[in-house]
Amino acid sequence: MTADLSVYENTESNVRSYCRSFPTTFTSASGAEITAADGKTYIDFLAGCSSLNYGHNDPDMKQALVDYIAGDGIAHGLDFHTEAKGAFLQAFSDHILKPREMNYRVQFTGPTGANAVEAALKLARKVTGRDRIIAFTNGFHGVTLGALACTGNGYHRKGASRPLEGVDRMPYDRAFGDDIDSGKVLEELLNNPSSGYEPPAAFILETVQGEGGLNEASAEWLQTVERVAREHGSLLIVDDIQAGCGRTGTFFSFEKLGICPDIVTMAKSLSGMGLPFAMTLLHPDLDIWSPAEHNGTFRGNNHAFVTARVALEKFWSDSSFSQKIEVKAEFLEERLVALAAKHGGTVKGRGMFRGIDVGSGELADEICAKCFKRGLIIETSGAHGEVVKVLAPLTIELTQFEKGLDILAESMASVIASKSADAA
Amino acid sequence: MTADLSVYENTESNVRSYCRSFPTTFTSASGAEITAADGKTYIDFLAGCSSLNYGHNDPDMKQALVDYIAGDGIAHGLDFHTEAKGAFLQAFSDHILKPREMNYRVQFTGPTGANAVEAALKLARKVTGRDRIIAFTNGFHGVTLGALACTGNGYHRKGASRPLEGVDRMPYDRAFGDDIDSGKVLEELLNNPSSGYEPPAAFILETVQGEGGLNEASAEWLQTVERVAREHGSLLIVDDIQAGCGRTGTFFSFEKLGICPDIVTMAKSLSGMGLPFAMTLLHPDLDIWSPAEHNGTFRGNNHAFVTARVALEKFWSDSSFSQKIEVKAEFLEERLVALAAKHGGTVKGRGMFRGIDVGSGELADEICAKCFKRGLIIETSGAHGEVVKVLAPLTIELTQFEKGLDILAESMASVIASKSADAA
Amino acid sequence: MTADLSVYENTESNVRSYCRSFPTTFTSASGAEITAADGKTYIDFLAGCSSLNYGHNDPDMKQALVDYIAGDGIAHGLDFHTEAKGAFLQAFSDHILKPREMNYRVQFTGPTGANAVEAALKLARKVTGRDRIIAFTNGFHGVTLGALACTGNGYHRKGASRPLEGVDRMPYDRAFGDDIDSGKVLEELLNNPSSGYEPPAAFILETVQGEGGLNEASAEWLQTVERVAREHGSLLIVDDIQAGCGRTGTFFSFEKLGICPDIVTMAKSLSGMGLPFAMTLLHPDLDIWSPAEHNGTFRGNNHAFVTARVALEKFWSDSSFSQKIEVKAEFLEERLVALAAKHGGTVKGRGMFRGIDVGSGELADEICAKCFKRGLIIETSGAHGEVVKVLAPLTIELTQFEKGLDILAESMASVIASKSADAA
Amino acid sequence: MTADLSVYENTESNVRSYCRSFPTTFTSASGAEITAADGKTYIDFLAGCSSLNYGHNDPDMKQALVDYIAGDGIAHGLDFHTEAKGAFLQAFSDHILKPREMNYRVQFTGPTGANAVEAALKLARKVTGRDRIIAFTNGFHGVTLGALACTGNGYHRKGASRPLEGVDRMPYDRAFGDDIDSGKVLEELLNNPSSGYEPPAAFILETVQGEGGLNEASAEWLQTVERVAREHGSLLIVDDIQAGCGRTGTFFSFEKLGICPDIVTMAKSLSGMGLPFAMTLLHPDLDIWSPAEHNGTFRGNNHAFVTARVALEKFWSDSSFSQKIEVKAEFLEERLVALAAKHGGTVKGRGMFRGIDVGSGELADEICAKCFKRGLIIETSGAHGEVVKVLAPLTIELTQFEKGLDILAESMASVIASKSADAA
Repeated sequence: MTADLSVYENTESNVRSYCRSFPTTFTSASGAEITAADGKTYIDFLAGCSSLNYGHNDPDMKQALVDYIAGDGIAHGLDFHTEAKGAFLQAFSDHILKPREMNYRVQFTGPTGANAVEAALKLARKVTGRDRIIAFTNGFHGVTLGALACTGNGYHRKGASRPLEGVDRMPYDRAFGDDIDSGKVLEELLNNPSSGYEPPAAFILETVQGEGGLNEASAEWLQTVERVAREHGSLLIVDDIQAGCGRTGTFFSFEKLGICPDIVTMAKSLSGMGLPFAMTLLHPDLDIWSPAEHNGTFRGNNHAFVTARVALEKFWSDSSFSQKIEVKAEFLEERLVALAAKHGGTVKGRGMFRGIDVGSGELADEICAKCFKRGLIIETSGAHGEVVKVLAPLTIELTQFEKGLDILAESMASVIASKSADAA
Repeated sequence: MTADLSVYENTESNVRSYCRSFPTTFTSASGAEITAADGKTYIDFLAGCSSLNYGHNDPDMKQALVDYIAGDGIAHGLDFHTEAKGAFLQAFSDHILKPREMNYRVQFTGPTGANAVEAALKLARKVTGRDRIIAFTNGFHGVTLGALACTGNGYHRKGASRPLEGVDRMPYDRAFGDDIDSGKVLEELLNNPSSGYEPPAAFILETVQGEGGLNEASAEWLQTVERVAREHGSLLIVDDIQAGCGRTGTFFSFEKLGICPDIVTMAKSLSGMGLPFAMTLLHPDLDIWSPAEHNGTFRGNNHAFVTARVALEKFWSDSSFSQKIEVKAEFLEERLVALAAKHGGTVKGRGMFRGIDVGSGELADEICAKCFKRGLIIETSGAHGEVVKVLAPLTIELTQFEKGLDILAESMASVIASKSADAA
Repeated sequence: MTADLSVYENTESNVRSYCRSFPTTFTSASGAEITAADGKTYIDFLAGCSSLNYGHNDPDMKQALVDYIAGDGIAHGLDFHTEAKGAFLQAFSDHILKPREMNYRVQFTGPTGANAVEAALKLARKVTGRDRIIAFTNGFHGVTLGALACTGNGYHRKGASRPLEGVDRMPYDRAFGDDIDSGKVLEELLNNPSSGYEPPAAFILETVQGEGGLNEASAEWLQTVERVAREHGSLLIVDDIQAGCGRTGTFFSFEKLGICPDIVTMAKSLSGMGLPFAMTLLHPDLDIWSPAEHNGTFRGNNHAFVTARVALEKFWSDSSFSQKIEVKAEFLEERLVALAAKHGGTVKGRGMFRGIDVGSGELADEICAKCFKRGLIIETSGAHGEVVKVLAPLTIELTQFEKGLDILAESMASVIASKSADAA
Repeated sequence: MTADLSVYENTESNVRSYCRSFPTTFTSASGAEITAADGKTYIDFLAGCSSLNYGHNDPDMKQALVDYIAGDGIAHGLDFHTEAKGAFLQAFSDHILKPREMNYRVQFTGPTGANAVEAALKLARKVTGRDRIIAFTNGFHGVTLGALACTGNGYHRKGASRPLEGVDRMPYDRAFGDDIDSGKVLEELLNNPSSGYEPPAAFILETVQGEGGLNEASAEWLQTVERVAREHGSLLIVDDIQAGCGRTGTFFSFEKLGICPDIVTMAKSLSGMGLPFAMTLLHPDLDIWSPAEHNGTFRGNNHAFVTARVALEKFWSDSSFSQKIEVKAEFLEERLVALAAKHGGTVKGRGMFRGIDVGSGELADEICAKCFKRGLIIETSGAHGEVVKVLAPLTIELTQFEKGLDILAESMASVIASKSADAA
């Protein structure tokens, strides 16, 4: 039986996208599984593009949110002080900032990652009095006009239908392979007063590029960027929207990399339960914002405050969750390395933020389509969509994880076998 | 007893704003009332800047949402087809579009009004192959870089710390008083090939300018803009984020004004319960989007689909709600006219989207501060913050409404009396 | 015999323009007459678009230039000090600045008006630390990217094939007729902090718009612009490239209008003989340029220094030339008023910077074409090319002037008669 | 006796520059020598920054120009067809284009190199419908807003006091030394759809970067740029303003490098005698300009047509001039190599477009100052002004050339000796 998708097809704009890869209607979800209207259940290796690091509908978050709503807790309060916000701020301070000896102020922006990025860019420009932002090849930072100027993806950039200004581009770590030292390129371009590059307001980067193809920056390169930023009076913005909240093993993706960003953007898994929620962290001495200078109706989603607080208390009050992620990450790496060894791809990424570059977007798409038929939701990334991306919930049960990876392995084998057959 | 606000003050960025006018911690809210941690209850004439047109925590929306969460309904599904989305689309089609003989496709954007505006601007540019957007004096369309270029407010514009490009400005209806015909100005500028204005991709406007000072455009002027747009191959975008969802009496603010916008942006009260949710409506023949060309993690908030559907079914399945708004609007007008007659201000706006221009931002601020002490939450708008803005929930009980207006009247009288005493 | 124009047609780009209206090859010129290869002589009412205010090949300038070249005078010296430059600066100081009690420093820019404008815009932005420039409807300031952003003409703007940024537009004096006070519009837009207009770095304007249709600004409006500029910390730039050098009767077009611009751009007739030459005048306290910050190979054309000095000494050492212009201007006005009375057009402009609006570009073109056949070179201006523009050399002999105006009158009558015949 | 420079100091803007390095008043010049008011004569190794490739006041050009002026030849004719223009076009066709089997149309732009570049950029955007231009590190293309966006020099860029848009930057050949292949970088950035670089309207480059430090591009790299341009539908613009007109040995700098630019910009020595004159060459099938779409008062300087024609006839009617340049260039190279061997610098550039990188701007400045005292005019270039630039007239007598190089050698030795003494 085919799902009746006519209401979507007749009413929704052509801009819809993920639903095209997974043409069914979903109804409910729990943990690492998501169920369709036809009763079929899928293992979720997409996890809301890392928005569901703690899985779907975590029971503790659910309960807290239901209680909050039932008790007439504030649902919408602009940026009023609310009890829910206060509790979140306290938990974020207690469980995240203090243990890491980090000193950031929290700016609740409109509840999208792009909005957190827009705020970060504005602040960097305001603080430094400079215009340029340096972003990197294959970076993805959102699609509102300011954030989109930082995004490298040409398909999304073209969607603006106007020039995207204010941003200069430099190569990400190993953008041209191992022979060309991107750190040296960066440094020389900034040290040459006739290079056409000015010292920027800020550098913005992801420590692992999610949409860009699971490209992982080395600690050394990141430290070079930070050093050059300091030398030229520029700020360092880490966009931790996709890589943060434990995806690479630690709460922030940069914790073990020897850098101290001035500004950090967060969203996706921040609410714990996939609710719209974003924030921009900034060093207190950069906090020269005037009231409402960057504002927005939905900044500070109170429902999200509730679930985000539970997430922090449940998963980040000690190091046990991090250790569990590490174990799973090792398991994942072994499986992906084995797959690559067998079929010839390249394993990419770090922690539970991994993928396998299968060489072409067509092949990757076929593998994902095959996975879907077999009960696994999985997607691609990369400039050519050539990387099959494994973004399982961090809380996934090992048996589910194994099952999902088995489906991936079988699908990959099957697609590649049929390719070989075609070629023969 | 003063509320302990230290957690906000120590941890939140200076950018926070509304909380400065209402320095307390709110805990719960129901209907038109909101309660603080100290037990004090306030009547809410701010209503989340028109995000709470149906009041706080409407019992039917609450129940539906609690049931949905308890049943492991999808909380986050990127832009997957979900049952909740399908039901919302059906309800929007049945209760809104069909009865009005309107033909729009729905684009779920990132869940902020600014994001809906960014999508609208991109689409208008893509469709027409033109760059310029014409926005109007005192317009407010959000603060992400693309939307902010359309916003007139200098304080917010300056926050970008870079030039805002791609937008030309024209005077809104009666921007220079009754003597200068803004429609004529618009028409002549577009008809003069040396005016420096090119035929734009689109005109973007609010039918009543919420942030800009409750300025109401006449049907005649709006029709002129639409006619000029048609003559020059430009689209008409109505930003109905603040004025829509019944605020002016009808679901869309433009229903009785004789115009047919090509694109409509919606957010704020769209979810019914104040949850982050936004969409861009577009005529089907403009739907040339490629998949994911404008995307975003939280586009299509499933919790909001649930509550928004309830809102549509409960309030818009027949004309009774509109009629009730009309009655309240008349009552409101009488009260405001009486206030203005007594104290010398000017009544502004339309429907339940009203305000009183008291001549200066300082005075308006004092009145609002006095109201807060007396248990009323109310705010200002306008270029100089000179308009005290009445944005009560449309569902407010008449006794509450009266009580709130009494507080406003007393506060205004008291502030003005003390001014006179000072001056004497 | 038709001129053989094949070398131009085969070799020159389609961008060539004036030569299309006057399809012949010119060989020599003297005073107000220009001679073609076929021996035919034309009266010149175009005068290099006001670059030949002193006529072609003034004998004193010619002699001085020939002597200079024969004596191996420096032809090209970058911006070296040269004797020719020193003498020009002294003459400009003695004959122009001192008698008018004006205090300007001279910046020699690249030898085009557009370059002088580019320098003016850069300086205004540097001095004020602001980005925006306010330019006016129908203004023309050149076609390099910075200057073109100020130019109103849509045909030229489109030539950029990219957005023109950094400039906001306001209506010129009486841009919408007498009913709408452009000064009030300007003032209100700047005083409204939500208008979308920021206080600009500078206002740039022509006192009479040459290309824009011989629109003359009133002293009152100009004074309003200057006052508003002062109130908002903005500079006033008068682009006197076409209107200056005596065209309106005085050396600067603004001498009798009660304004004191901060920056003045000059070119066209500045060299006296039509040689490429431009400069930007700036108040000494604005002279915060760093050396070479705006540079260019041909800034300071030494041949032009020689002829420009002769022009200043010959025509501006006392008031006699101004008085003669006034007499001719009165004569011209009488003739144009009579023409307009007879044929129904509108007389435009000031001094010897006049034209007659004949209602349509087609009609104006036909009149000019007819004039050319009868021995008069004359062109159109205006947003629709609807103004037949009389830009005779200021030194034209009265008999020539009369003859030229007779040709114009006859051509106009003839074209209009044939139109009437067609219509009958 | 010190020259009295007060008229310049009191009247000219601080923006003046070269005159600061050579604080005297020049009066006359002939061939490779220039004479000051105090009678002192200097050898000219600056040659108007390559505007005087044929030396000062070439007797044949002088005579032709004097005759032309004396005979009332058109001095200023907008873009009318004139005899002088026709003769220049014929000579350019006969002596330059035909012998090289090149097929270009000629666009006379405003008479500055920057204006020719602005025209080239506009045309490339118009032809391709694309916005971006790719320019290279250390490129110099002028300082009007469009051209300045292509220029790499930070000092000049900052002079705009606003963002410079529409241009992306890539590394010039060997910008990062021999280890990093700039051609590979270019190719990979364009082939990666997520690099943030779009296929541009055009690449713009100099084959030898004059202002950027006499950096010479290899034929191989230039061919890579051209190939990548063709693959991506982009045009190739060679800015031959400084390197053209024989400076590198051939008329165009790219003649022997295996590339066929779509658009070529020319100025500086084009007029032969240093008169303001510029043009943009374009392949006929790109000639989609509309009439006057890029215009300007002084486009097509008739005096320059006269001298430029003489230059073409005298120097380019056969290959003898090129051969003589080659001989001088070899001589120059020997001398510079010897100097570098002795003092430790690096010889840069090609043909008669050479320099010696002495390691620091301070040292280079001291050497030039010492040269001036000894009767040689010479200047620096490079991002840090670290290259002493030898731009002698191509027509310089060998004895003068030797004398100038002797002064350079002595000055360099003397400065370096005194440095060593200081250090000891």
